[in-house]
Amino acid sequence: MKAIVHIGLKPGVLDPQGRAIARSLNDLGFDSVKGARQGKVIELDLNGEDRTQAEADVTAMCEKLLANLVIESYRIDIED
Amino acid sequence: MKAIVHIGLKPGVLDPQGRAIARSLNDLGFDSVKGARQGKVIELDLNGEDRTQAEADVTAMCEKLLANLVIESYRIDIED
Repeated sequence: MKAIVHIGLKPGVLDPQGRAIARSLNDLGFDSVKGARQGKVIELDLNGEDRTQAEADVTAMCEKLLANLVIESYRIDIED
Repeated sequence: MKAIVHIGLKPGVLDPQGRAIARSLNDLGFDSVKGARQGKVIELDLNGEDRTQAEADVTAMCEKLLANLVIESYRIDIED
């Protein structure tokens, strides 16, 4: 089973990396870019067939290690 | 208009960050984790209403700046 975890900065949290990307794109001539935000995706390979269990496990992983809940939010997609 | 760019390492490219995540999760007691790979997501705010143009622009951005095509592949989703 696979779990895709999307982690991004919460709205309102300053994203210097995203700002650097937007500015670099503007500098390269891509004037249509108004802003950019960068997040990360973690793809997990999981043992087991129980979808509910997997979702509970991955939520615990996010809370304990993967996401910094003070500034980041996460979303989990489970795939078979 | 919004463009979501997913960038990940190509299959076969060593991903030490993903490996560190998998090992840390195992160390924390999450034994169901067999492996992990980390990628990034860039969310772009774009001016303009032309979807085809936006897709062409974002493809050019990926080729020129956002992705390292030697080791990374990318996927673009355009949202209104």
